[in-house]
Amino acid sequence: MDRTLRIMTEDPLNAETDPSSLRSWITPNAKFFNRNQSPMLTEPISLVDWRLTIEGEVKEPLAFRYDELLRLPKATVANTVECSGNGRALLSTKARGNPWTVGGVGNAVWGGVWLGDLLRLAGPTEASLHVAFEGIDDPSGRATVKFIRSIPIEKALSSTLIAYEMNGDPLPPEHGFPVRGLPLGWTGASCVKWLTRITVIDKPYAGHFMDAVYRVFQEGQRPTDGTVVTSIVMKAIITQPLPNEELDGRPMTILGFAYGGELPVAAVDVSVDGGERWTPAEMIGPNERYAWRQWRYVWTPDRPGDHRLMARASDSEGNRQPMKASWNVLGYGNNGVEEHVVTVHVGR
Amino acid sequence: MDRTLRIMTEDPLNAETDPSSLRSWITPNAKFFNRNQSPMLTEPISLVDWRLTIEGEVKEPLAFRYDELLRLPKATVANTVECSGNGRALLSTKARGNPWTVGGVGNAVWGGVWLGDLLRLAGPTEASLHVAFEGIDDPSGRATVKFIRSIPIEKALSSTLIAYEMNGDPLPPEHGFPVRGLPLGWTGASCVKWLTRITVIDKPYAGHFMDAVYRVFQEGQRPTDGTVVTSIVMKAIITQPLPNEELDGRPMTILGFAYGGELPVAAVDVSVDGGERWTPAEMIGPNERYAWRQWRYVWTPDRPGDHRLMARASDSEGNRQPMKASWNVLGYGNNGVEEHVVTVHVGR
Repeated sequence: MDRTLRIMTEDPLNAETDPSSLRSWITPNAKFFNRNQSPMLTEPISLVDWRLTIEGEVKEPLAFRYDELLRLPKATVANTVECSGNGRALLSTKARGNPWTVGGVGNAVWGGVWLGDLLRLAGPTEASLHVAFEGIDDPSGRATVKFIRSIPIEKALSSTLIAYEMNGDPLPPEHGFPVRGLPLGWTGASCVKWLTRITVIDKPYAGHFMDAVYRVFQEGQRPTDGTVVTSIVMKAIITQPLPNEELDGRPMTILGFAYGGELPVAAVDVSVDGGERWTPAEMIGPNERYAWRQWRYVWTPDRPGDHRLMARASDSEGNRQPMKASWNVLGYGNNGVEEHVVTVHVGR
Repeated sequence: MDRTLRIMTEDPLNAETDPSSLRSWITPNAKFFNRNQSPMLTEPISLVDWRLTIEGEVKEPLAFRYDELLRLPKATVANTVECSGNGRALLSTKARGNPWTVGGVGNAVWGGVWLGDLLRLAGPTEASLHVAFEGIDDPSGRATVKFIRSIPIEKALSSTLIAYEMNGDPLPPEHGFPVRGLPLGWTGASCVKWLTRITVIDKPYAGHFMDAVYRVFQEGQRPTDGTVVTSIVMKAIITQPLPNEELDGRPMTILGFAYGGELPVAAVDVSVDGGERWTPAEMIGPNERYAWRQWRYVWTPDRPGDHRLMARASDSEGNRQPMKASWNVLGYGNNGVEEHVVTVHVGR
């Protein structure tokens, strides 16, 4: 683990990427955010007895060894993962949960096999409607509830990777070695690490991590009155300059990313006056379906003093990221437009 | 440096990526091949006094500090780099030079600034026809000739990065920290590491590394009778299975990459019978202009015994990689079709 990570809790490990490490399209594995429900496994899982099983509502339950997965048709996908609660600490009305600022997000090129390929080998039935992921978690036995999450069969068949590789290296232990589920474009909550059991079921899995949390609901509602968190929501982030930076007034490049989970971002507009006027940013760098897009905007400050920088994403149909996210009890999906106030000292 | 690298010479360090590390679209920095003319710098270059200068045939010579480069408009590009001599050891008629097999190639996402942006700031003149790169090399003083290479102004203005970032991390010391020249799609010979001086000139730079080596010429010719090595040439490589692997006869995925430098590869055909019949492979993974493209081909061996696997790239105009590369004295650009012989033990 990189010492530049900002640690929120040590055990379980919850740590976000330092904003200074968010200048690049690839987020190196050692700098990638960590979100865990239980203490970390004390040593990497041994592959000797390890199997990935597919069971439940399938014609033929299967168990794959690691080397068997490597022989199956490989898929390689650039995919951005964001913690469901990323940005929670920036909400003006506080919400419960870890205080993620902007660094609960990262982008990697993942290698693995399509879950759809595995499911077709096992043979879906008419009752194959949802797919539950269970990982080897909680070696301490302290957790009272297993971390199990399910996704609908359509997502499982169309665009979910079983990832064994991250940025060219085997999946690091803290990111789920040997494999993790990766529904493309969805928040980290559905990307179950240390995945070992895939159970096909006829309804969404019922359990704490499906019904009590990772739901968007309001005060006075029960969690199950709300909807399950699935896709990452559309937003733009500014990664240079950082809030409260002091600038010397010369031309500089405002940098950032924009991402929308399953929904591709088409454009980013930038404001340097707190939202009065907006100008399109230039989209740069790799352009891959499920990966964030980098953008840049060259800015020459027109006066000394404070400046309020903002960025706002929109999709190809003109839908725009909201100026203020709709609040919910657990503070998920904060995609309100953030303001970076910077101070210019001309001629410094 | 990764201990999986296959070291050819220690000092200067010349090492290629182990074929087992060529399964992934991103080549991790620690596994990326190393090609050096001189002993490695003993410690990372200090940024305190470091400058990147632009001089020669320009209206205004300039010097940039590292932090100034970071403020300029950022570019992010996926780009495959290959050693000019990669594949030399596989030539049937031996050629002089380091015995590269297949691992003198890798793919990274690079961040930096466009050389064109820097040149436009300095102001080209009518005499700005070539651009020479000079790095801080040879700290030992043992080398008698500086490593200087020049590229034509068209390449410098259109598609050359001054890279300061590699796969999301600052450029590692062994890959040129703080910056390296990166003419996109060209072989490593033009990607000068530890770059510190950019000189604009009115003709190609004359010197050992332009005129005596990195030229394609025949026996009896002088090097200067031949052409300078520039773009990577089109080829496909098989990265799974490796030569002489023993297989168990079950269906398996043949994996590889295809790349063509400045020329995009459009298709790859695979033969499992030594070149008698060819079938199109499936192109997978990120599709970026200057980066290799991953391909896969699912193969079920039809009998036990030896099988001869081959892959062959072609471009959008139907030009094909040659079965046998045209030989030259220094063994550059070996893009002949390679054969991986594997042995199948059915029912093993």
